[in-house]
Amino acid sequence: MNDKTALLARRERLLGKNMSTFYLDPVHLVKAEGVWLWDADGKRYLDCYNNVPHVGHCHPRVVEAICKQASMLNTHTRYLHEGILDYVEKLTATFHESLDTAILTCTGSEANDIALRMAQAVTGKTGVIATDRTYHGNTAAVSQLSTRMPPVGGYGGHVRHVPAPDGYRPLGGEPGEAFTNAWAQAIEEAIASLQASPHGFSALIIDPFFANEGFPELPDGFLKKAADLVRKAGGLLICDEVQPGFGRTGTHMWGHQRAGIVPDVVTLGKPMGNGHPIGGVVASSDTLNAFRKAFRYFNTFGGNPVSCAAASAVLDVLTDELLMENARVVGEYARDGLSRLAEKHDLIGNVRGSGLFFGAELVLDQKTREPATNLATTVINEMRQRGVLMGKLGIHQNATKIRPPMPFSQDNADLMLQTLDDVLAGL
Amino acid sequence: MNDKTALLARRERLLGKNMSTFYLDPVHLVKAEGVWLWDADGKRYLDCYNNVPHVGHCHPRVVEAICKQASMLNTHTRYLHEGILDYVEKLTATFHESLDTAILTCTGSEANDIALRMAQAVTGKTGVIATDRTYHGNTAAVSQLSTRMPPVGGYGGHVRHVPAPDGYRPLGGEPGEAFTNAWAQAIEEAIASLQASPHGFSALIIDPFFANEGFPELPDGFLKKAADLVRKAGGLLICDEVQPGFGRTGTHMWGHQRAGIVPDVVTLGKPMGNGHPIGGVVASSDTLNAFRKAFRYFNTFGGNPVSCAAASAVLDVLTDELLMENARVVGEYARDGLSRLAEKHDLIGNVRGSGLFFGAELVLDQKTREPATNLATTVINEMRQRGVLMGKLGIHQNATKIRPPMPFSQDNADLMLQTLDDVLAGL
Repeated sequence: MNDKTALLARRERLLGKNMSTFYLDPVHLVKAEGVWLWDADGKRYLDCYNNVPHVGHCHPRVVEAICKQASMLNTHTRYLHEGILDYVEKLTATFHESLDTAILTCTGSEANDIALRMAQAVTGKTGVIATDRTYHGNTAAVSQLSTRMPPVGGYGGHVRHVPAPDGYRPLGGEPGEAFTNAWAQAIEEAIASLQASPHGFSALIIDPFFANEGFPELPDGFLKKAADLVRKAGGLLICDEVQPGFGRTGTHMWGHQRAGIVPDVVTLGKPMGNGHPIGGVVASSDTLNAFRKAFRYFNTFGGNPVSCAAASAVLDVLTDELLMENARVVGEYARDGLSRLAEKHDLIGNVRGSGLFFGAELVLDQKTREPATNLATTVINEMRQRGVLMGKLGIHQNATKIRPPMPFSQDNADLMLQTLDDVLAGL
Repeated sequence: MNDKTALLARRERLLGKNMSTFYLDPVHLVKAEGVWLWDADGKRYLDCYNNVPHVGHCHPRVVEAICKQASMLNTHTRYLHEGILDYVEKLTATFHESLDTAILTCTGSEANDIALRMAQAVTGKTGVIATDRTYHGNTAAVSQLSTRMPPVGGYGGHVRHVPAPDGYRPLGGEPGEAFTNAWAQAIEEAIASLQASPHGFSALIIDPFFANEGFPELPDGFLKKAADLVRKAGGLLICDEVQPGFGRTGTHMWGHQRAGIVPDVVTLGKPMGNGHPIGGVVASSDTLNAFRKAFRYFNTFGGNPVSCAAASAVLDVLTDELLMENARVVGEYARDGLSRLAEKHDLIGNVRGSGLFFGAELVLDQKTREPATNLATTVINEMRQRGVLMGKLGIHQNATKIRPPMPFSQDNADLMLQTLDDVLAGL
């Protein structure tokens, strides 16, 4: 039994079965810095996957902020502390003026769990619309949004799913306005269905970048029409910014700004503290007060001084190191590189994304666009063997998921592209 | 407008209304060490309240563990890492051999949210029994256990409440076995009611120390009878160890061990990482595997290397500094002191607790035991003015809540007792 087999056996004994790992040959990590990861054998990997270490693995300014505050004071928000106020002020300054208050949590799941209840508090209804390929977190309430697995006790009946938008295979068969209208009609029907049910309609919850759905390229104003329908029906628009937020898409700080809409509630998670467990909900004071009045809420760890220090350092580094601009420039460069690879390799059907969240959809046939789901698995495993870590996602699980730490450089992109070229050539 | 008024106004503007603070004159904290806290004016407070900084505020070994790991690697459990395995091995070694696997989360709320689904996965049912004065966390699903506030959309109908056990005013009017039987009968009726409903019976969830219920003194074997009924009905016993766990009660590492029962699922939170956001669920591998099979589950931040390093340091300090033994010795000393105060002050109706979780129930009349709820508020506010921080809790919100960091010393206890004596004398 080699070391890794022993480690996997120990993992199953202590953490249970069915605990997923990445790759056929899981990676055993021991060290990280910037965009690099090292395994127990000293092998180095280029990180093209992890959005959690947003400003780079182990960024010294974030580590220092954590250490300094952890040695000074770490307590809860029933005492007064300026750390949370300074952070929320800095955070909300990056949003539309209507989104001016926040609740801090420890995870994006907790944030979405609150967001759903905010919509309930404002509307008095409980029905929710989400896409049929979405994922918003792991609490019992939030899991009800996923179609992956029917929960014990069944679904609550209060969720309506609309088709995940797919710009490559547009709903109704036509791109542009016809696609926008077809999707808006699906929203309209879902609203009507909820209004006809005992649940009523409280909210549409979406990732405005539709990351898990495969970050589709969508017509201009695509979400505007849906947002208008939601408001007209008295519902709230919840934007889950866990993936597109904090400047990742390169052009805007938030995915909803890129999509040209203003949500009622925004949820935050993964990249917020560079790996330190912090999430949050941003909303108008009216919405937030309605939630607190209807549900009360206290989160022992949420908004503690250390978490706020970590999150504050992330915002500062993002600004000082011009990382959103880097995401835009390097993202464009890398997508151009992928498009050149598409000319050589028939497997690449569609290159898309924004900033440092992008990838290629792999297809068996350029005309039929038949998804190359199994080959996508082969590709990411081959990449891993060659020292480049990426994932896959999308409606057909056939799109490469390239979502590196934000200091990802053109040299890093070149290494990723060269390796992908080699892997595709060797298939 | 003085500084604190301005700070409170800023807080309401950024964090919303109805966000609770402790004390009529909230404390603005800036620094902490061991059992001491300092406010912005340099005033020092003895911390008799906070269980989160379990091994003492800003304990250097915990801070060092966090800093060291945060500068080395912080990523998720889809890669292999030994930190989580070393920690879970060390943690589960403190439990009965049947409780040998764990899922790590970021909060106790997330842990209880999982625990309820574990019971669903094992039993295929969804009905739950809890006490009518309990609190197990803030997710939408877990909030359904609380009686505090009817949620928008109403209760799910799957929760049955039994009276919070009160050794000072025993159910049925008689102490001892009659009380044990009366409470067991309430459990039996709740089980029968759930079995007769579409929900069925999945679990009894309790804090085995009944901290929020007022940490009542209970007859020997009190929980054994209830646990037997739960098992007989095919349900799971979930013990929420967020408050009594990690040696706080002085005599046992876990509250359920003190109560002489072995639960099916144990949930952990607050003190686990000394303030770093970490929680967890400990169960048998069969129970844990059933959950993973029925629901899948992945928590991005849960079990990350930094969280595990913090939690591991907490366990080490607990052992090396003999803090459980300290809790036993100092807790007994402090309760003896409270009992002496009870001879002087008629307001003290009952002194109880275990280790470093104890307090006095304040009553208006020793015979009728009429709760002195408002006076309890006055007492804790007076204590705060004199530099001693404590809280209140219980069925009637009239018991002082004394639950300091575990390095609390006899000298600290003397200061608390002397201050309380002065406050009670001055009422």
